[in-house]
Amino acid sequence: MTMTLAPDKTIPFLATDVFDATDELAVTTIRALAMDAVQQANSGHPGLPLGMADAAYALWTRVLKHNPRHPAWFNRDRFILSAGHGSMLLYALLHLGGYDLCLDDLKRFRRLGSKTPGHPEFGLTPGVETTTGPLGQGLANAVGMAMAEKFLAARFNRPGFDIIDHYTYALVSDGEMMEGISHEAASLAGHLGLGKLIWLYDSNGISIDGPTTLTFTEDVAARFAAYNWHVQSVNGHDKLAVLAALENARAQTERPSLVIARTHIGYGSPHKQDTAKAHGEPLGEDEVRATKLNLGWDPDAKFFVPDTVRARFADFARWGALAENEWQDRFAAYADSFPELARELEHAMAGKLPEDWASPTFALDKPLATRAASGAVLNALAARVPTLVGGSADLTPSNNTQPKDAPGVFAGRYIHFGVREHAMGAILNGLALHGGVVPYGGTFLVFSDYMRPAIRLAALMRQRVIFVFTHDSIGLGEDGPTHQPVEHLTALRAIPNLVVLRPADATETVEAWRVALARKDGPTALILTRQAVPVLNRAELAPASGLSRGGYVLRDVPNPQLILIATGSEIHLVLQAQAALGGLGIAARVVNLPSWELFHAQPAEYRESVLPAAIRARVAVEAGATLAWARYVGERGIAMGVDSFGVSAPHQDVYRHFGLTVDGIVAAARRVLE
Amino acid sequence: MTMTLAPDKTIPFLATDVFDATDELAVTTIRALAMDAVQQANSGHPGLPLGMADAAYALWTRVLKHNPRHPAWFNRDRFILSAGHGSMLLYALLHLGGYDLCLDDLKRFRRLGSKTPGHPEFGLTPGVETTTGPLGQGLANAVGMAMAEKFLAARFNRPGFDIIDHYTYALVSDGEMMEGISHEAASLAGHLGLGKLIWLYDSNGISIDGPTTLTFTEDVAARFAAYNWHVQSVNGHDKLAVLAALENARAQTERPSLVIARTHIGYGSPHKQDTAKAHGEPLGEDEVRATKLNLGWDPDAKFFVPDTVRARFADFARWGALAENEWQDRFAAYADSFPELARELEHAMAGKLPEDWASPTFALDKPLATRAASGAVLNALAARVPTLVGGSADLTPSNNTQPKDAPGVFAGRYIHFGVREHAMGAILNGLALHGGVVPYGGTFLVFSDYMRPAIRLAALMRQRVIFVFTHDSIGLGEDGPTHQPVEHLTALRAIPNLVVLRPADATETVEAWRVALARKDGPTALILTRQAVPVLNRAELAPASGLSRGGYVLRDVPNPQLILIATGSEIHLVLQAQAALGGLGIAARVVNLPSWELFHAQPAEYRESVLPAAIRARVAVEAGATLAWARYVGERGIAMGVDSFGVSAPHQDVYRHFGLTVDGIVAAARRVLE
Repeated sequence: MTMTLAPDKTIPFLATDVFDATDELAVTTIRALAMDAVQQANSGHPGLPLGMADAAYALWTRVLKHNPRHPAWFNRDRFILSAGHGSMLLYALLHLGGYDLCLDDLKRFRRLGSKTPGHPEFGLTPGVETTTGPLGQGLANAVGMAMAEKFLAARFNRPGFDIIDHYTYALVSDGEMMEGISHEAASLAGHLGLGKLIWLYDSNGISIDGPTTLTFTEDVAARFAAYNWHVQSVNGHDKLAVLAALENARAQTERPSLVIARTHIGYGSPHKQDTAKAHGEPLGEDEVRATKLNLGWDPDAKFFVPDTVRARFADFARWGALAENEWQDRFAAYADSFPELARELEHAMAGKLPEDWASPTFALDKPLATRAASGAVLNALAARVPTLVGGSADLTPSNNTQPKDAPGVFAGRYIHFGVREHAMGAILNGLALHGGVVPYGGTFLVFSDYMRPAIRLAALMRQRVIFVFTHDSIGLGEDGPTHQPVEHLTALRAIPNLVVLRPADATETVEAWRVALARKDGPTALILTRQAVPVLNRAELAPASGLSRGGYVLRDVPNPQLILIATGSEIHLVLQAQAALGGLGIAARVVNLPSWELFHAQPAEYRESVLPAAIRARVAVEAGATLAWARYVGERGIAMGVDSFGVSAPHQDVYRHFGLTVDGIVAAARRVLE
Repeated sequence: MTMTLAPDKTIPFLATDVFDATDELAVTTIRALAMDAVQQANSGHPGLPLGMADAAYALWTRVLKHNPRHPAWFNRDRFILSAGHGSMLLYALLHLGGYDLCLDDLKRFRRLGSKTPGHPEFGLTPGVETTTGPLGQGLANAVGMAMAEKFLAARFNRPGFDIIDHYTYALVSDGEMMEGISHEAASLAGHLGLGKLIWLYDSNGISIDGPTTLTFTEDVAARFAAYNWHVQSVNGHDKLAVLAALENARAQTERPSLVIARTHIGYGSPHKQDTAKAHGEPLGEDEVRATKLNLGWDPDAKFFVPDTVRARFADFARWGALAENEWQDRFAAYADSFPELARELEHAMAGKLPEDWASPTFALDKPLATRAASGAVLNALAARVPTLVGGSADLTPSNNTQPKDAPGVFAGRYIHFGVREHAMGAILNGLALHGGVVPYGGTFLVFSDYMRPAIRLAALMRQRVIFVFTHDSIGLGEDGPTHQPVEHLTALRAIPNLVVLRPADATETVEAWRVALARKDGPTALILTRQAVPVLNRAELAPASGLSRGGYVLRDVPNPQLILIATGSEIHLVLQAQAALGGLGIAARVVNLPSWELFHAQPAEYRESVLPAAIRARVAVEAGATLAWARYVGERGIAMGVDSFGVSAPHQDVYRHFGLTVDGIVAAARRVLE
């Protein structure tokens, strides 16, 4: 058998079809490092690193195209440890592979401030492509990365210039195969025929509760075949067999591949191999010694790396550098032949966006749902931002997420995610992490619950992902309480690093998109109405650009006695209430608060200028839970909202039912002033 | 072909193997009612009722064992419209079937206060078994109901007395098959061999974005075969074929069954059949007329039910009454033979629980994680409550959810859900809705995100479901930010009707379980620590029974200047801070606030006695988002918490990292008093 994986097949240690004694030593080194680090931390998961060291080594050293000295090389193969609890496997590979992760870092596994946290964290450790741990997220990130590759290849490659042509690998686990997101992601990947996506499945038959026969007896191979995947099953400890399977998988260009690696969890541990005990706790000093002896390792050696192993990995790293050099040369030639495209790609890779897209404008006499305004923005954007990629979880006509036939729209740019909110969220994260594209995705706000784990990770990883959440309140009307979000604004605001933006009208929706696109260090949730709302006359009101500060005085009066605060569609109610109160001789300021997060990032003086502490009479109106509104209305104010589930009825009736009316606000204002 | 479905096969209209002209008329009546109601509401989903009228009619009238005059009959077959947007199909069947739902109710479809909301709501409409609409929930509820049936049958049936022996049917849709929860639920159902679970799948090839070929091309039949399901595919408009398939499905006692009914969405509509336009909006007056004409219906007749159709359904209803009568006789004979069991079953059916279970007690000198205390409670409960059924999403040893080998523990009582949080949540709902059992389920608090849609529905339906969420904060330590919940307490508190309970120690954990079990009208989330916390000495502190009021003064001082408020593990910090402040001459009251919801349900005077408005100097400490704490600390107080993601390190280090220490609290208290 001859491997033909490398761009440069003349390198001796890659052209071989055997794993020699040094390779075996290297694999044992990985196992020993993982055991040592977990033991030293007295916390962690040794089972997966021991079990998957063989297969991961085969993949990493013979297949994966990456350059440890330049982890950001754009066309590198992506490797995702979806089963993030096996972090020490990844850290050992990164350390040995030559990434900027030293032995001392491994010794500080799971310690405060180390680069080796309990689960891999993107941005903290060079070579970690995504944050994993919550099961099923990484494998769906991988789908997103493979989609990004396919999209960018279609847009930028030219005959003779395969500038974008990498593979995406994910190491997945039994537990992940049980998670619903694995279904959503795999079904979509199969549908899209992502030929460069390969999942290496650590099938060890053990989960935390015990053998998987307790709960998980489905035929995974048949299931994936039903998804249109190419499926192989191999002994995960036979490195040549793993390599051959990976080669077959790479040759499948029309279908994603699943390589089922049958392994022994806790491989080598005399008393814990093949048991749940190996999964999530240190083996114990005695068992570590026994395992090392069993593996032919010095039981007294801790955090030890043989020189021959270091030398071997240095060879691999050289190959990685050569691979990138080859690509850089290719890119230079490409730039000569296609300077415009190359420039566009460079901008895309850097995450830069044009700022000169033409904002749509809106007629004052035509009330418009903010979701419709968002659709107009997307049309304008599509013409200028060819790498804006997005879709909807089967609510395209409701979310208004599909640009019309605008210039630059081509196959793959609009994603019909299907009714797969959770995978959509994680795929958006994968698209963003891959780079080169700016991803967005839509569903109803109430179904943000279906994708919360992915939203959380977008925030934790500080990725520019734009969530388009429409049908944002009881204002959606007849579909009733199952579809009316009530708690969701509060629940989303509670997520750190997520900017939640609820524009009040069409014009602010444009501004909201500007903010979301400009925000390179975190995700944004755009919260949009189903129902039409007036387009505010900015000639009489403060400009919509105030939205970028999170909160601003929308319409003031001299010497206000009272502040009316609202977000989104409720702004229109408080504006009317302000007028009504004026008629009663009560001077009320109207403050628009579309984003709590942006407002809090403002200087204290600005916040004080908008919400002066001295004006304690306040009424806040938002069609959702009032739980957290005390922070703005204080001890004397009143927060009007919806603290129960909604009801099915035309939206005007629902608003009346909950007392969210101009009269109700006026009455509340008078109570507050008493 | 002879059908042998009915308990009384001598009834002529059931013994037939044909559907006669009256049956055809009845099916058209269903279609016409659905069109009329959607059109009158000018809102709704006509496509599914038109497409599935044939198959649903076959199931409802020839197979389903139910008594419209007594919807609560315990041994009825369950029918779940999992695709809840097709609510008019269900409402039409309920109306015609003789449930307490009149024609005027149909005319008020989707109006305020009607019994026919946009999506079916449990508790609002007789005959609606569960609230559906969010895709994938109902089908997983059905799995829970089938599990309840199997469990209760195993416990209560005796030779010759099949007291519990019903089927559970769910009507599921294309969109639901895409949802991840369908994978989790089906994989588990196949593993458990739920032979009395039958999903009738409306395979119409259309979703909102268009034909399912856009996004959903998996081989569903092969996928379900891989799950160990029995799979059939039939023409969904051929009622006899549907009936035969259902009969085959019922005969499969060892496997759940999927009946794929190939249908035409919007059946009969000349211009909208087989298009996404038929799905979610009224056909329009003209198209309604055209469709009626096409179906041989008077286009001018609205909300019309032919007398022959009424008579036919009356016959079906009589059969249903006979079926229940037969069961009541059987139960009476059973009660004669097995009086103890019958009494136990009656209690179980009524949802009654013994209150005399022995509370575990805890040694004061042995700090204990509240998750461990919860495990002790479950051991005590298991001995007394044989119908307490629960499990964990593959975190059994961490959640401490499995009772030891206590009396009464038998097969099926403990559920290894696998890593299937979302299905677990919806299955718990199904168990509760079925009745006869009291369900609980565990996972890490951070993974409550994976099951939020189900938690929401438990709350909306006011079901007694107990969620056991352990590892409740940064206190879980080394696993790091992916596993440390930060926003989750706030996010859960925002859900209406959900009681969130975070006990401070082992003793309060017992009280928390008491509250959760006694709470018959809603779910409870128990929030439990991973790390050990002291067992509070109640001889020196207020009794733990105060927990049932949601908040109470745990340790007071004369003339307090300041109030320290905390929940859960942070109580121990504020108690120490209280002592330290006392040493500085500062008198601080300690208020324990384990449940905001319960506290808010107390009379205002009680709340004032705990948190007097006059004491404005307040410090709240909770290891999570401070977003909503302004409601308790007011304008002058300080809320200490965690407003970013956590970090991976030993838990003591993490607490210090975030300043959640006794010194930090003392410093905050002094700032507040300045």
